[in-house]
Amino acid sequence: MADVVAFRKEEPGGLLLREANGPVLRLTLNNPPANALSLALLEALAAEFDAVASSKDVKVIVIAASGKVFSAGHDLKELTLHRADEDGGRAFFERAVRLAADIMVKITSLPQAVIAEIDGLATAAGCQLVASCDLAICTDSSTFCTPGVNIGLFCSTPMVALTRAARRKQAFEMLLTGETIDASTAKDFGIVNRIVPQQYLRQVVDKYASVIASKSPQALKIGKEAFYRQAEMSMADAYDYAIGVMVENLLARDAEEGIGAFLGKRMPEWKED
Amino acid sequence: MADVVAFRKEEPGGLLLREANGPVLRLTLNNPPANALSLALLEALAAEFDAVASSKDVKVIVIAASGKVFSAGHDLKELTLHRADEDGGRAFFERAVRLAADIMVKITSLPQAVIAEIDGLATAAGCQLVASCDLAICTDSSTFCTPGVNIGLFCSTPMVALTRAARRKQAFEMLLTGETIDASTAKDFGIVNRIVPQQYLRQVVDKYASVIASKSPQALKIGKEAFYRQAEMSMADAYDYAIGVMVENLLARDAEEGIGAFLGKRMPEWKED
Amino acid sequence: MADVVAFRKEEPGGLLLREANGPVLRLTLNNPPANALSLALLEALAAEFDAVASSKDVKVIVIAASGKVFSAGHDLKELTLHRADEDGGRAFFERAVRLAADIMVKITSLPQAVIAEIDGLATAAGCQLVASCDLAICTDSSTFCTPGVNIGLFCSTPMVALTRAARRKQAFEMLLTGETIDASTAKDFGIVNRIVPQQYLRQVVDKYASVIASKSPQALKIGKEAFYRQAEMSMADAYDYAIGVMVENLLARDAEEGIGAFLGKRMPEWKED
Repeated sequence: MADVVAFRKEEPGGLLLREANGPVLRLTLNNPPANALSLALLEALAAEFDAVASSKDVKVIVIAASGKVFSAGHDLKELTLHRADEDGGRAFFERAVRLAADIMVKITSLPQAVIAEIDGLATAAGCQLVASCDLAICTDSSTFCTPGVNIGLFCSTPMVALTRAARRKQAFEMLLTGETIDASTAKDFGIVNRIVPQQYLRQVVDKYASVIASKSPQALKIGKEAFYRQAEMSMADAYDYAIGVMVENLLARDAEEGIGAFLGKRMPEWKED
Repeated sequence: MADVVAFRKEEPGGLLLREANGPVLRLTLNNPPANALSLALLEALAAEFDAVASSKDVKVIVIAASGKVFSAGHDLKELTLHRADEDGGRAFFERAVRLAADIMVKITSLPQAVIAEIDGLATAAGCQLVASCDLAICTDSSTFCTPGVNIGLFCSTPMVALTRAARRKQAFEMLLTGETIDASTAKDFGIVNRIVPQQYLRQVVDKYASVIASKSPQALKIGKEAFYRQAEMSMADAYDYAIGVMVENLLARDAEEGIGAFLGKRMPEWKED
Repeated sequence: MADVVAFRKEEPGGLLLREANGPVLRLTLNNPPANALSLALLEALAAEFDAVASSKDVKVIVIAASGKVFSAGHDLKELTLHRADEDGGRAFFERAVRLAADIMVKITSLPQAVIAEIDGLATAAGCQLVASCDLAICTDSSTFCTPGVNIGLFCSTPMVALTRAARRKQAFEMLLTGETIDASTAKDFGIVNRIVPQQYLRQVVDKYASVIASKSPQALKIGKEAFYRQAEMSMADAYDYAIGVMVENLLARDAEEGIGAFLGKRMPEWKED
């Protein structure tokens, strides 16, 4: 039923599995053993995001992972190899770190909702990826940490995502101590939304994906863009902006249909756009 | 004992019940069956807030509701009727959406503390109203949601209040899925402060109202204004501002009286201002 | 083993106990009965922070307290005495309030991690001090409040720290009602990180201090500075900034050593700087 194909077979091949299932695109990190975010995997993610951004068919993206590690973050071996470069690695480091950050920002700017599905360990930029998704659902045995401080490399870019998901002391505790937190603590911190037993993970994620995919794509797109924009404004500016968004949304076709359906006690039919 | 009168009997009459009880003003949404925030009810709320802003007698405002729904937000029937307007409803939509947002902002700028008292369902702009009050106390059977996404109308203005009360992933979960959360989750998210059994709701709200009303009105006014202003500043700017506020507060009459009473182990007598 | 000496014996003497234990500096508020933050104690704290800022030996600072009160905040008797000054106390109030705020900001700008160790009551500026530390660990019988509103003096400067640690409604609840919250609520609000039984408090704090002190001082310094700076930026600006920090960190000596040690499965040796 699902169309499972490896991403770009001629390239690093299979680093990012792609499964399109109606309105839900499932991307599976597949870089064993730790799903390190090598440059090739980061590029594959960026390419997928760029391609899907204009898709009218895909309404929800799920980011999952093969094996027992969701992702261990940047590929330290790859980074280390580039220390032999003429510039000591600077150009490569900049490329890898910026690309990872760009991917996190892309997640917030995609019109689709992005759900992280975690079963295992998410560390450093892997934890950042979880924190950056719109929603995150994990198994009760999943764990999270930002352990850069242990190797002399503070998790400075992950902290950007972490600080915007968790409260200050909680984010800083993770960053300063490098300690691993369990799923329950991650939910308490605001890094994940739901914890489920492992055998139900896929089922629950699929349910959330299909619930969201059943909404008006127009409303989702309007709402997601407004969400991240207003979050960084003063309250007064946020209201000025959101009032405009709300009025345009009210005048748009899907709100007329949706409100009409609600008042008429029938199912709405969304415009395919 | 309490002075219960309907608001402006000559107008939509009884949409907003008004009960003045010493320093506590109780406003009850009374627009059955769902306490929809029709333009008339929004105007009644705005008029009350404008009138009470300069009152020296009222120190706390409670916003409660008749029936099993706290408020279902904007009046969808009314909005729909205005689609027949020459401009397709734009002018009316702008008026209603802006007025609702203005009311939320007014709540934060009133010198009085504003407590939401919820027993039932608060949705969309009704949930925004709860999130916008200074404090919120609800029964254990109360529920909350922002279900605009279900009718093609993303809850864009409610998201402004929600994002400032809850953490990002939690607010976005409510907005994206439209799902209803229970009282306990709402407390965990930071949308309400207290959950109480239904039979004690009024008693607990009255207690909080009278505790707050017993404080120095001068200190409450200084503190509430400073709270919302500093919350949006950088830490350095917030301290610069708060230091000025604190020094003026120390020099004001009520701090001198209050500190003197504390050191002298007697009850303070606040200035009636 | 520990080098316990009173701070500046010729001055207010013993107001701030100082215990240097390898890389951990322990400062104990010692102004019985309530560890009021008198001008002398504030000056002692500021002097310690200024002196330690350039220390290469100290990696972690613990702020603890003698007796059953962590700190009751500003010294109300001292403030009251200065009402007799020619200017009604204004100059002294400004000096004390600004110095306290400066200390809170200094905590965030020190290169060392600062841990609050609380066993007892922390109120007003005492609660602000807890909220301002990078991490806070308290006993299960510790309590917290910002009761200025009870004496006509709203806790306006403490609110700056509180709003940045807790969510808005929770911070405002404490400020408006002046009520005391228990340790568990303080952890839920994000004001403290850990709650431990009293007999293990010192042991747990020492463990956290030594875990953090074992990290690369270079990484800690880079990370702490970046943490507080990016927290106040927009997401896009925060990433631009953090990418630069991360690349410089990757090129620095300790990251090369740390990553090499990690890949080589050996212990890293940090540069003493």
